[in-house]
Amino acid sequence: MKRTAFFISDGTGITAEALGNSLLAQFEKIHFERITVPYIDDLEKAANLVKRINKSAELDGEKPLVFDTIVDNTIRAEITKANGFMIDIFGTFLQPLEQELAASSSYSVGRSHSISNESNYERRIHAVNFALDNDDGARTRYYDEADIILIGASRSGKTPTCLYLALHYGIKAANYPITEDDIHDQRLPKVLRPHREKLFGLTIDPDRLATIRNERRPNSRYSSAKQCQFEVEEIELMYRRERLPYLNTTAYSVEEISTRIMVNTGIERNR
Amino acid sequence: MKRTAFFISDGTGITAEALGNSLLAQFEKIHFERITVPYIDDLEKAANLVKRINKSAELDGEKPLVFDTIVDNTIRAEITKANGFMIDIFGTFLQPLEQELAASSSYSVGRSHSISNESNYERRIHAVNFALDNDDGARTRYYDEADIILIGASRSGKTPTCLYLALHYGIKAANYPITEDDIHDQRLPKVLRPHREKLFGLTIDPDRLATIRNERRPNSRYSSAKQCQFEVEEIELMYRRERLPYLNTTAYSVEEISTRIMVNTGIERNR
Repeated sequence: MKRTAFFISDGTGITAEALGNSLLAQFEKIHFERITVPYIDDLEKAANLVKRINKSAELDGEKPLVFDTIVDNTIRAEITKANGFMIDIFGTFLQPLEQELAASSSYSVGRSHSISNESNYERRIHAVNFALDNDDGARTRYYDEADIILIGASRSGKTPTCLYLALHYGIKAANYPITEDDIHDQRLPKVLRPHREKLFGLTIDPDRLATIRNERRPNSRYSSAKQCQFEVEEIELMYRRERLPYLNTTAYSVEEISTRIMVNTGIERNR
Repeated sequence: MKRTAFFISDGTGITAEALGNSLLAQFEKIHFERITVPYIDDLEKAANLVKRINKSAELDGEKPLVFDTIVDNTIRAEITKANGFMIDIFGTFLQPLEQELAASSSYSVGRSHSISNESNYERRIHAVNFALDNDDGARTRYYDEADIILIGASRSGKTPTCLYLALHYGIKAANYPITEDDIHDQRLPKVLRPHREKLFGLTIDPDRLATIRNERRPNSRYSSAKQCQFEVEEIELMYRRERLPYLNTTAYSVEEISTRIMVNTGIERNR
């Protein structure tokens, strides 16, 4: 079974996409054809989009689902003319919110992913630069500035997680790879000791680690089952001995790893 | 005026946050204290959260706004007992969707940001690695694999945009910095010529570029108004002469730059 879903917005469409995808994820048996249409910010674009939705309805023989976060009432009214099943996100929630807050919505377009909150946006970009400059143990002398320092075996998920924390939440995240040369008697590497309160460990099932490393360097010692097993064991022993908080990332996405780190450490979103 | 807003989920809370922030962005005059509470996946956690919301209501003297994407009806019913103003996202939309789709929601928790769609998730992580390996002109020999190659002056927004495209959409984005040595007679640098159909140019107002560069290397030739002016002019002339699509990033966030690039090039989200 196949169904078309449109995510429509006067801005980037990111919110409509996020909510739409969350709802569609609840219907696993249906295959959805997803179409994001951002920047529908005048009546002409809206009218053209209505035609596109109607055409899709005709081809499918069923109404497309239409998730929209359009702010402007006139443009939204135009979209409503389409032969689609409307999930009108702002239309549903804005009016009750206006009442509860006893305030008018500004009905300003595309605000949620703009740089309108400039200091907040700059903090995110700075955090991305910080993550890149302090990736993979490249530099350790700026750890004083870090909000968090992720540690773990090579390819346990540190870099994508740092980037996600930076890009989304403006969190300054450095990362340091623990290699076998770094571990003696399951103690923390010297360079990390002054920053113990910022450390968060990642670990991963050795089999999964070997698979990931094999994509990078096939049939090497680095990616062998034995080496992965050894590193993971030593590193986990070190985490426990040093009583560091840590997380097994095997079953988690970067979004989940990032969220769990924030829950676990109480680190603040910088927004 | 201050108001507390909770973003609650049985998963990461990212969808509740995204939608909640979009709606709150429409009320510019109110200061919102934002609290994200992920992983509310049993009744005990829900009951504790109810207490927390009630306490917040007492302290504020006003009902907190509660945005939730909790899937389980029993847990959601518990949350409803709180003294909050409920924006019940899944409760509002899931039932009408079930009717329209003539299908039951699976009521499975935390699906939208999990790795349940594994090939899709791996594509995103590969794309992040691709962006890192092919950042800043570091390598040009893998441009055949790229979905897109961003070009532009140093600090015009290429790297964060590549990372965003990769992390969110699984798009393989490389980037190449255009320096003054690269431009002769406003022609495309040689190394880029075989990949012309993948090129997308970024530009930026020279004043803004000078500000950004000054944070990086204060009072250098690199960050001088004159140098920034010169580079931007030459690069824009080159874009026009070579008829490359390009975008001025000055007023845009990475989310907006990424969305505009996707609209402009028709590049597909890999999901």
